[in-house]
Amino acid sequence: MYSFKSDYSEGCHPRILKTMVSSNLLQSDGYGLDIYSQEAIKILKQRLNYENIDIHFISGGTQTNLLAIATFLRAHEAVLATYEGHIYADECGSIEATGHKVVPVHSDNGKISAAMIEKALIDHSDPFDVKIKLIYISNVSEVGTIYTKKELQELRTCCDKNDLLLFMDGARLGSALTSTINDVSFIDLCHFFDAFYIGGTKNGALFGEALVIVKDDLKPDFRYAYKQRGAMLAKGRLLGIQFYELFKDKLYLDLANHANKMAMIIKEAFLKNNYRLLYDSYSNLQFPIIPNHLLSKFSEKYYFNIIKKVDDNNTAVRFVTSWATTEEIVKELVNDISLIK
Amino acid sequence: MYSFKSDYSEGCHPRILKTMVSSNLLQSDGYGLDIYSQEAIKILKQRLNYENIDIHFISGGTQTNLLAIATFLRAHEAVLATYEGHIYADECGSIEATGHKVVPVHSDNGKISAAMIEKALIDHSDPFDVKIKLIYISNVSEVGTIYTKKELQELRTCCDKNDLLLFMDGARLGSALTSTINDVSFIDLCHFFDAFYIGGTKNGALFGEALVIVKDDLKPDFRYAYKQRGAMLAKGRLLGIQFYELFKDKLYLDLANHANKMAMIIKEAFLKNNYRLLYDSYSNLQFPIIPNHLLSKFSEKYYFNIIKKVDDNNTAVRFVTSWATTEEIVKELVNDISLIK
Amino acid sequence: MYSFKSDYSEGCHPRILKTMVSSNLLQSDGYGLDIYSQEAIKILKQRLNYENIDIHFISGGTQTNLLAIATFLRAHEAVLATYEGHIYADECGSIEATGHKVVPVHSDNGKISAAMIEKALIDHSDPFDVKIKLIYISNVSEVGTIYTKKELQELRTCCDKNDLLLFMDGARLGSALTSTINDVSFIDLCHFFDAFYIGGTKNGALFGEALVIVKDDLKPDFRYAYKQRGAMLAKGRLLGIQFYELFKDKLYLDLANHANKMAMIIKEAFLKNNYRLLYDSYSNLQFPIIPNHLLSKFSEKYYFNIIKKVDDNNTAVRFVTSWATTEEIVKELVNDISLIK
Amino acid sequence: MYSFKSDYSEGCHPRILKTMVSSNLLQSDGYGLDIYSQEAIKILKQRLNYENIDIHFISGGTQTNLLAIATFLRAHEAVLATYEGHIYADECGSIEATGHKVVPVHSDNGKISAAMIEKALIDHSDPFDVKIKLIYISNVSEVGTIYTKKELQELRTCCDKNDLLLFMDGARLGSALTSTINDVSFIDLCHFFDAFYIGGTKNGALFGEALVIVKDDLKPDFRYAYKQRGAMLAKGRLLGIQFYELFKDKLYLDLANHANKMAMIIKEAFLKNNYRLLYDSYSNLQFPIIPNHLLSKFSEKYYFNIIKKVDDNNTAVRFVTSWATTEEIVKELVNDISLIK
Repeated sequence: MYSFKSDYSEGCHPRILKTMVSSNLLQSDGYGLDIYSQEAIKILKQRLNYENIDIHFISGGTQTNLLAIATFLRAHEAVLATYEGHIYADECGSIEATGHKVVPVHSDNGKISAAMIEKALIDHSDPFDVKIKLIYISNVSEVGTIYTKKELQELRTCCDKNDLLLFMDGARLGSALTSTINDVSFIDLCHFFDAFYIGGTKNGALFGEALVIVKDDLKPDFRYAYKQRGAMLAKGRLLGIQFYELFKDKLYLDLANHANKMAMIIKEAFLKNNYRLLYDSYSNLQFPIIPNHLLSKFSEKYYFNIIKKVDDNNTAVRFVTSWATTEEIVKELVNDISLIK
Repeated sequence: MYSFKSDYSEGCHPRILKTMVSSNLLQSDGYGLDIYSQEAIKILKQRLNYENIDIHFISGGTQTNLLAIATFLRAHEAVLATYEGHIYADECGSIEATGHKVVPVHSDNGKISAAMIEKALIDHSDPFDVKIKLIYISNVSEVGTIYTKKELQELRTCCDKNDLLLFMDGARLGSALTSTINDVSFIDLCHFFDAFYIGGTKNGALFGEALVIVKDDLKPDFRYAYKQRGAMLAKGRLLGIQFYELFKDKLYLDLANHANKMAMIIKEAFLKNNYRLLYDSYSNLQFPIIPNHLLSKFSEKYYFNIIKKVDDNNTAVRFVTSWATTEEIVKELVNDISLIK
Repeated sequence: MYSFKSDYSEGCHPRILKTMVSSNLLQSDGYGLDIYSQEAIKILKQRLNYENIDIHFISGGTQTNLLAIATFLRAHEAVLATYEGHIYADECGSIEATGHKVVPVHSDNGKISAAMIEKALIDHSDPFDVKIKLIYISNVSEVGTIYTKKELQELRTCCDKNDLLLFMDGARLGSALTSTINDVSFIDLCHFFDAFYIGGTKNGALFGEALVIVKDDLKPDFRYAYKQRGAMLAKGRLLGIQFYELFKDKLYLDLANHANKMAMIIKEAFLKNNYRLLYDSYSNLQFPIIPNHLLSKFSEKYYFNIIKKVDDNNTAVRFVTSWATTEEIVKELVNDISLIK
Repeated sequence: MYSFKSDYSEGCHPRILKTMVSSNLLQSDGYGLDIYSQEAIKILKQRLNYENIDIHFISGGTQTNLLAIATFLRAHEAVLATYEGHIYADECGSIEATGHKVVPVHSDNGKISAAMIEKALIDHSDPFDVKIKLIYISNVSEVGTIYTKKELQELRTCCDKNDLLLFMDGARLGSALTSTINDVSFIDLCHFFDAFYIGGTKNGALFGEALVIVKDDLKPDFRYAYKQRGAMLAKGRLLGIQFYELFKDKLYLDLANHANKMAMIIKEAFLKNNYRLLYDSYSNLQFPIIPNHLLSKFSEKYYFNIIKKVDDNNTAVRFVTSWATTEEIVKELVNDISLIK
């Protein structure tokens, strides 16, 4: 059995482990003040081509989202997200647990548009509604779509006009930036977002995300928030080592590129065999619609996620590839797609 | 320069890294449902000689404390801790950030007694005060002292009588259990505490603590809380592997025992050279009082913590040993203690 | 200009003011421990025909909702409400501000059914979703509908089966209980709900709601929560006096009955003149649909709420009556309804 | 039996009730947007001689404190207060319930000095401590003392220097401003504080405090916070009427002045009869120390508060006077003080 359920089924890229082993007995400062973390921050600033940012390494995505949002907002402010948004649908009310409402909006393609924000602001315009202050987007979105440069620019303009914060969940940022239809690059990010995170856990790290704070107002005191929410790792070096290894050369993008390639091969195989797709994704998430009577045949050899019943006879599922997905297993799956009838 | 500032300056025991490397590319379920975590839980139940407990692995101590306490308490309930208590003094208001007041009590030796609890309950007896519900102790305490079996039994009796929860922060539990003056063992713990955690970060793990929930009422739904506070690691296997390695044999206690031995050698050296001690510790934390004019000489070769000025001429400091502290460096320090005049 | 915008445009029933004046200089205990409050509680228990309940008087509806819900739930638990539910739509994220997510469900008629609960539980079944624990209903609902005894019984059965709490917002409970289509009475309430509140503010009081806690588990320590959220009035007598006056005889129901009667006259006038209604309400809230070109004519003489555009030519509005709405003004409105063309 | 336990044992000044009666059936806007509230705000700005402030009326002191502090602070920021501070000792952890730690400091006289702030900042200087951001003082303090102009100026200077917010709990502000040793006036207040509240509940109102926000940064969106914490009264007119009546002429100060006078007569009687005082108060709170064997004699005729045992034979108690304390009862008490032996 092989699992296509997630992009975090394996450990990490071997190079990371190697550095962890070689540096294991060196003493270093705790709490992210070590030299590995400092070096990783330096390199990330170069990749982002932006000096005036603060970078903090955090163990996981939910923690990064809640820590950033709870720290950036005043007590009465709320967040706008899609119904599929990870913070709305998949993080167990973590944002609300910090006191902030997440206002959901419907989206056909998992993405928020400037028009959707404008409408939500009209719908929430007095103190009996909440005060919407932060726009949360995921890129890659939860349904596999990615934002274009033009869309991000429109979001930025809309947020500036309405005094809103724009935040990106980049759990799968690598996949977005290496997608064949992508026109956004690392050096654009600090110009579009007030804050965002670069996901490590789903792209080659053991664990860890790099939160980037661009807007000056949001920077002060973040280490207090970081400690207060239990997010400050004693051996912060662990996170530093990982981001150093992923970003000292092209490894991060290479790993994501591989995952995308594997996903596109699977996508094409489904299309060639006349399967429909729930979403037209060019990322490492693929959403084929499978006739119910074939589901069990696929399940004999592969793990994948059931997304939803499309109609009485068909079910949409999700296949996820990663840096660790081998060409061999993808070939085997492609073969099975053409055989299973 | 060698650092005696903390017990988390190095990485982890090499055996842990070895297993991480060897299992790195095996696929496993996420979120603590993997086989390593399951196996680690099984072994821990054996060590604790108690089957009817829930065990959750969490990345760090502050996170474990806040997650447990916030989940166990109703909204209006409060915690009792010493002024030195880690949650009161060193975790940036993390408990208060979840809505619960930490009521501090004075303690001469860093430990809470049943009498102190009874007095605090009298002082907090109506709805204008808070409702004290959970007693937080650390063993080893923050000043290096450890609880005796008799003291724990008295705390248990007091908590039963007053319908209170008894919680132990075991960040340095290994050091407590292997202290030469200790009479408590693993198999006692589930009989004394409603919940406690076994610290990994400060005793050989890369990171991670094992929260043990004994009281049945506190068990349901913990995984919801775990996810909601951002504490659920995607690759939970990392935590499982570490606790499996630490507890599959005597490694955990061996590492703590080594740290204690190193600490006792240092303690004796200070005593032999007529230094006083701020606290009489039999753990891996030592608190010598150093004449101010000698401080800089020690600082030339070693990092350590300044605790407080004892008087105009003397300063109490803290030396911390760990599983990674070598006999060589301790010998050197002992030598320096006798030389520095 | 006369306002039909709300049922709290005037002060209170004169009898309440009279008792406030006559008792003004008597000394009494604070914080709800006064004799007026105690007497009001005694009377309410008689009206509800239920002795084993706790009753607390609270200044307003939003405060009552947030105080009850935040106190009843554990930190990770969530609430189910309709999209129109007052706590979801009109209280500025007050429940989320206490850390609990409100999960919204669609409802055609403003009411939650057992089937809707069952579906929501299926949709929220693991720790990545939230844990739904409390069902929030309003009776009268926000769209003017009321629950039948059968519907409430089904909700109770569903909640028992799924270990859920059932809570009723009774801001307009008087109007529900005196509606011509109602079959529920005061003595039913404690058998259906784990807790509910009897609204005073919108039915003759200056301000104040009576929270009734039926389920034993939810009762302990409520006064702590009450104080902690700032809801405990120093001069609790004010609340006691009001509920004493409203419930020592039939005044509470008489006032609601009057409001309903006035509303039904208005409803019939609209129907007779071939207006459609957005909701078929038998409460003091009426939702006529008015052609856009007539809106300004109504607005010249009356204040009312715009609810939503029904289509390009028509707008649904809301007229609210109260204990203070006079027959004269209703006659005038009825006349205008037939004249405005 | 007569009660000297609190300054909120009676209702309100009759003039307030009269206006409530006369305006009872007039329709008005809800939520503080009514003409009474608007007029009261206008008058208060005149009394304070400061135009650029926001004023919000809130039902009680605990609610005002928690609402202001929770709204002004970012999530990780903390408050400094004395151990006697109302928010630390008497409000059931209300500030902590909003997520903020209250750091207590020792004070001999119930007042905070600039030096105490400076020391606390040194003691809390990194992210393992909390970030102190707001200084909470009460004037009259909880032990009956009042701040001089010079002391307030020093606090202001210290807060400016350290980027701190200065907040005053003015539950008994009337008593402070009319104390015989006072040199502060209404028109000074907006120059010293970033925000403060003028207490109504303890000085002639039925209930209600007027929160004054001076610092521009703290003003935006307060009505959101106000609604979200359940503090927005539907019939806000009630609060407006009270502050209008108290401030349209000198009534507020006259009432406080009367309370102080009554208190000073009591104080002098105790002193003349050779009683010691726990605190030397020139406010409406008096703290005589009574030999234990006389306690029961006083208790036969009067209610008062037990504060603490001073030694084995003596107990400090608290007598509180108010606007409603009559000269007759004070005369009687004075007589008893000289008789009880």
